[in-house]
Amino acid sequence: MSVRYDLAIVGSGAAGISAAINAKLRNKNIIVFGNKDLSAKLVKAPMIDNYLGLPEITGVQLKDKFIKHATDMGVEVTAEKINNIYAMGDYFALMSNDKEYEATAVIVATGIEFSKPLPGELEYLGNGVSYCATCDASFYKGKVVTVIGYNQESVEEANFINEVVEKTYFVPMFKGNVALNKDIEIIQGEPVRIQGTDKANLLILKDREIKTDAVFILKDSVSPEQLVPGLEMDGLHIKVNRKMETNLEGLYAAGDISGKPYQYMKAAGEGQIAALNAVGFIDSK
Amino acid sequence: MSVRYDLAIVGSGAAGISAAINAKLRNKNIIVFGNKDLSAKLVKAPMIDNYLGLPEITGVQLKDKFIKHATDMGVEVTAEKINNIYAMGDYFALMSNDKEYEATAVIVATGIEFSKPLPGELEYLGNGVSYCATCDASFYKGKVVTVIGYNQESVEEANFINEVVEKTYFVPMFKGNVALNKDIEIIQGEPVRIQGTDKANLLILKDREIKTDAVFILKDSVSPEQLVPGLEMDGLHIKVNRKMETNLEGLYAAGDISGKPYQYMKAAGEGQIAALNAVGFIDSK
Repeated sequence: MSVRYDLAIVGSGAAGISAAINAKLRNKNIIVFGNKDLSAKLVKAPMIDNYLGLPEITGVQLKDKFIKHATDMGVEVTAEKINNIYAMGDYFALMSNDKEYEATAVIVATGIEFSKPLPGELEYLGNGVSYCATCDASFYKGKVVTVIGYNQESVEEANFINEVVEKTYFVPMFKGNVALNKDIEIIQGEPVRIQGTDKANLLILKDREIKTDAVFILKDSVSPEQLVPGLEMDGLHIKVNRKMETNLEGLYAAGDISGKPYQYMKAAGEGQIAALNAVGFIDSK
Repeated sequence: MSVRYDLAIVGSGAAGISAAINAKLRNKNIIVFGNKDLSAKLVKAPMIDNYLGLPEITGVQLKDKFIKHATDMGVEVTAEKINNIYAMGDYFALMSNDKEYEATAVIVATGIEFSKPLPGELEYLGNGVSYCATCDASFYKGKVVTVIGYNQESVEEANFINEVVEKTYFVPMFKGNVALNKDIEIIQGEPVRIQGTDKANLLILKDREIKTDAVFILKDSVSPEQLVPGLEMDGLHIKVNRKMETNLEGLYAAGDISGKPYQYMKAAGEGQIAALNAVGFIDSK
């Protein structure tokens, strides 16, 4: 059986880390899912001049300050990607590639770097389209699989898929070294559409097509509706009130994913609000 | 005629200063009303451990960081108390003791340190109860006036009132030196109620009563409803939406006055949201 955390925080940017230090100060048993650089967006910021109290700071410097603050407080970041969050009644189940975590309350602070779904992507999700190699690769033994990979982790996942399936194509959507198993065929090109009948069977790229039994789309974050079934949205953003509550009791959102402006200070403030309200919710249970 | 500012920010705590640097970065012509210590609450904080990026900082140290950031950006604080803000149609008029300011948009970030009104205070406001010495002292020539003073500025104002009226009582509501003109009679005690007929004529204290023609209540901030006629409240707080908009177009609120939790990070984030939305509003005019 899994450990039951008080609070799971999905995302390690300004909102997630702010939420974490506030919940930790309230003596909650927390887990933060993210990565060691905290936020891809933050470390790319050349200069931030509106984070009050830290004028003219680079993204990397601010990230280092966040890490120091978190470390001082005993907050660690667990480098796992959460693929799904399910409301189970009196707790939430959070699914990573190979583990299940449980928490009484959840804060979604994933940022808004997910890309728009391809035409056909959502239509065939679960019918030939998958976001999770570990979950679904075994369904395609002896078949042809195409991976659209957005990051280095997708390379490792493609190598794993290739051990299971007959033939793997890999469409890299990022720059940098692609250390793929040599059996995997790299296809350069821009995916345009996924087609099929009852199941997806064709990936249309700008200049060619790939006949395939499955399309694995492996990116940093999935859209909130796929992450949390039943979550109410407001356009691209998770719908929240002033307490950062979503339509699902015990589930909060903070930072860019909960609305504009996309700013670090706003995100940190919202992380704090979400954490303090989540603490109240946890204490009321 | 007054200068028309793009944006007036009333309050110089975390919310106000955060709003100021964000509006300044958007090249808006702004004015910030507050005081040189920025926030009475902030400088009294012994240790703040949840301001992300600045772990274990005292209130005074954080105040100094805010001042440095503001100064670097060319943001100054105008040490004037705003008594009233009026929506004039296409601008707002902000009244201090002896000046009128004009701004296209306003952010109210006064904090929540105002005390509850005394019984009778609101009933007789404008009929023997006043919040503004400069505005109303001249109505009481040859009369008896009682000042309930919450801060050092109220001592100066009582001295001014005493030059105009026949007799001045002063009820100090703060600790520290009270450098009053010797003609002024100091009354120690806790005000309980203001009574009168068509006008206020009696201040009831816990242990005694004062017959008086007027009661001047001089504190750091007045409640938002008195500050801004027509402002919609939600209990003690100004009612705002996720954009920090109030029910009055062009008027925003941020920080403690807009709701709990009362936290610096939350206030700074809200100041940023209010400023960026105010900038959008100003640009749309």
